[in-house]
Amino acid sequence: MKKFTMEDLMAYCSQYGFIFRGSEIYGGLANTWDYGPLGTRFKNNIKDAWRYFFIQTWDNSYELDSDILMNPAVWEASGHLAGFSDPLLDCRSCKTRHRADNLINEYNSEANADTMTQEEMLHYIKENQIPCPKCGKSDFTDIRQFNLMFATQRGVTEEGAAAIYLRPENAQGEYVNFLNVMRTMRTKLPFGIGQIGKAFRNEITPGNFTFRTIEFEQMEYQTFCRKGEDEALYEYFKSYGIQFFEFLGIKTEHLRHHDHEKLAHYAKAACDIEYLFPFGWGEINGTHNRTDFDLTRHQEYSGKSLEYFEEETKEKYIPYIIESTYGLDRIVLALLFEALEEEELEKGETRQVLRLSPSLAPVKINVLPLIKKRHAEKALEIYKGLKRKYMVSYDDAGNIGKRYRRGDVIGTPYAVTVDDDTLEKGIVTVRQRDTMEQIRLPYSELESYFRDKFQF
Amino acid sequence: MKKFTMEDLMAYCSQYGFIFRGSEIYGGLANTWDYGPLGTRFKNNIKDAWRYFFIQTWDNSYELDSDILMNPAVWEASGHLAGFSDPLLDCRSCKTRHRADNLINEYNSEANADTMTQEEMLHYIKENQIPCPKCGKSDFTDIRQFNLMFATQRGVTEEGAAAIYLRPENAQGEYVNFLNVMRTMRTKLPFGIGQIGKAFRNEITPGNFTFRTIEFEQMEYQTFCRKGEDEALYEYFKSYGIQFFEFLGIKTEHLRHHDHEKLAHYAKAACDIEYLFPFGWGEINGTHNRTDFDLTRHQEYSGKSLEYFEEETKEKYIPYIIESTYGLDRIVLALLFEALEEEELEKGETRQVLRLSPSLAPVKINVLPLIKKRHAEKALEIYKGLKRKYMVSYDDAGNIGKRYRRGDVIGTPYAVTVDDDTLEKGIVTVRQRDTMEQIRLPYSELESYFRDKFQF
Repeated sequence: MKKFTMEDLMAYCSQYGFIFRGSEIYGGLANTWDYGPLGTRFKNNIKDAWRYFFIQTWDNSYELDSDILMNPAVWEASGHLAGFSDPLLDCRSCKTRHRADNLINEYNSEANADTMTQEEMLHYIKENQIPCPKCGKSDFTDIRQFNLMFATQRGVTEEGAAAIYLRPENAQGEYVNFLNVMRTMRTKLPFGIGQIGKAFRNEITPGNFTFRTIEFEQMEYQTFCRKGEDEALYEYFKSYGIQFFEFLGIKTEHLRHHDHEKLAHYAKAACDIEYLFPFGWGEINGTHNRTDFDLTRHQEYSGKSLEYFEEETKEKYIPYIIESTYGLDRIVLALLFEALEEEELEKGETRQVLRLSPSLAPVKINVLPLIKKRHAEKALEIYKGLKRKYMVSYDDAGNIGKRYRRGDVIGTPYAVTVDDDTLEKGIVTVRQRDTMEQIRLPYSELESYFRDKFQF
Repeated sequence: MKKFTMEDLMAYCSQYGFIFRGSEIYGGLANTWDYGPLGTRFKNNIKDAWRYFFIQTWDNSYELDSDILMNPAVWEASGHLAGFSDPLLDCRSCKTRHRADNLINEYNSEANADTMTQEEMLHYIKENQIPCPKCGKSDFTDIRQFNLMFATQRGVTEEGAAAIYLRPENAQGEYVNFLNVMRTMRTKLPFGIGQIGKAFRNEITPGNFTFRTIEFEQMEYQTFCRKGEDEALYEYFKSYGIQFFEFLGIKTEHLRHHDHEKLAHYAKAACDIEYLFPFGWGEINGTHNRTDFDLTRHQEYSGKSLEYFEEETKEKYIPYIIESTYGLDRIVLALLFEALEEEELEKGETRQVLRLSPSLAPVKINVLPLIKKRHAEKALEIYKGLKRKYMVSYDDAGNIGKRYRRGDVIGTPYAVTVDDDTLEKGIVTVRQRDTMEQIRLPYSELESYFRDKFQF
């Protein structure tokens, strides 16, 4: 079976309308990407799957949609204004800028720069005379911390303008609304708030296609609980993440847990789920035990009590939070790698097929008139009927084999072919993408045939 | 029937979990709002309705999801960098800042400042000695144009940092991807590209709740066509907009067309659909004939040909664009005003009921055990079954009448009550929100009873 590289997948995405370079006609804007018609539908379907598995079918689970722009005090409290930064240094010789941790890790993958302080990194670079990847000299400036948040100005007077930030994570929206959600949903601990939305980071690291971008979409889930319940919940979300990815269609052997040794300032424990990309293992989910850090800080900075009153015990306390974050763009990428295959058929023929789960496929059914002149009218009638229920395509161009392949390569699970039997006896052919098996059935039965085929 | 004011609706939205003030615990951030659990579901349902009516059921209609951050050359070409600004002046006496057009329109609603040039506005203000709304004096500075785009810095070196902008509209994403979509979808003119996404404007005008905000969500639809087809398409979208709003549940008499006299630099014709808010008529949709302005400018600025080759006539030309934009936050607001009622019942009782279309209601079914102790087990079983298909709630607190009311006020179309008959004969009661009629049926039939109730 052919191994697809990142370049192969980028070409595939551009060719079939999944993902285009952002602002492409202007030469792009580095590390931004636009989702085309198929990519958008596919992404929407993954969002719906997440909503189904994290919100709809769970109890005490609520979706939030908070603004990207927040009061800047939020980022003081969260620690992002002071601490959300990359350690950068410049090459004095060729003037290029680099991340100190990346320099070290690329020089020696055993070095573990993630656990070093800024001073230790600088010392390591000097001691080992690590060369600049661009010019080969080893003459660097000191390390400076560069904040990853994008800043902009709110307000219009020079005096009155205030710096505000594009959120670097959705989570703080859930935290500052924790009491609003609890009050309006009349719920008690433990409960969860999830959010799908965009976040922004002014990264200098190159991207690996949509893996690391300056604008990205997260599906975040925060569980608010009593201290003492946190460790079990943390373990629960670690394994639920694997289940969710397996449901989406990722093979178990392409997933692994990666426990963090170096923890962020807010976390008591942290674990990623990684997927085996062509460039190696990469994070597609992160689960963190954030303890009561965030709510304690927000209480302190806002002056508003964020305590929970537990009726049973009459205790007041600040809840613990278990966060489980899913990177939507990375999941799109992982699922495309997982599903795209070049399959060998008989007689040395091959076909490209995208083996997406039918519930996630961007187009559900491809309707084909066998002979355009003779079968188009009936085929269009069937197409229009199915469109009321599903995302459906219609294809009358070229021979039938070519049209089947065009559905296969974008992952369309079913093709419905209209021929003379349809006109005479009301019988259509339904072809299945993966097995290429064909069955024949009355077109009046299509609705019931497809009814449960695309559900989660 | 009680008339709800904006203040009533804001209180309602906060009380029931539709919309909260953004960053509320920090005293908010002016003109930002967060959607709570019910608001988020409601908004998601409106998006799905839009997708159904503009993308899924149409031919040659494609959804795009392009990045908020674009190459700044896009905004040069579109004219936003030079011309997307408000005419602002300061009161020399009290130092407050005002929009010149608003000063004039509020002073004399017949004055029609929208059609005045900057010089005419200044002249009108001086001639009429229009007073400052804050201090009452009439001593203003000259008018300056203030750009409404939020700017931020991409990149990390001081030298290398470049200003980029938060998009003030989605449309340019569709325009710069027009050839990508046409190529990958193998389509021809006329075809359409729609997009749901956030846009940002650094407005100084106060908000009317979510009517005017600095961050908002648009559902935009661009039709690319041959010159000559544009005027008929423009008329088509004007009336289709009314149909769409009527489908969503707005009464015809609360909608009107408002043709623009003063046209934006890119438009040949422009018309809003307005809804009758408590503060007066306000725009919830705009349809524009943008001609070939945008694509011509992008061709010029990018140096890439954006011409279309028409096979039938062998002609090459730049397509015309008809744009029809729906303000999602404003539609949420309009639908809430439209649906919220205080109804008088018998014996002088009243109830609040949110008469949303079942397809748009945030919660579809409320499951209630008549007596918690006796009926909870069976009720929970039914609740869990329905949750696999729909957004469902479970309520066991308080008497049954109160629980019905709690469903009514948030617009839940059905309540399913479990009582002794359920345990003995498998019969449940289904109560309808609007009529308050109750029917009894076997709970094994609930699935087929609800099957088509929530579809568009």
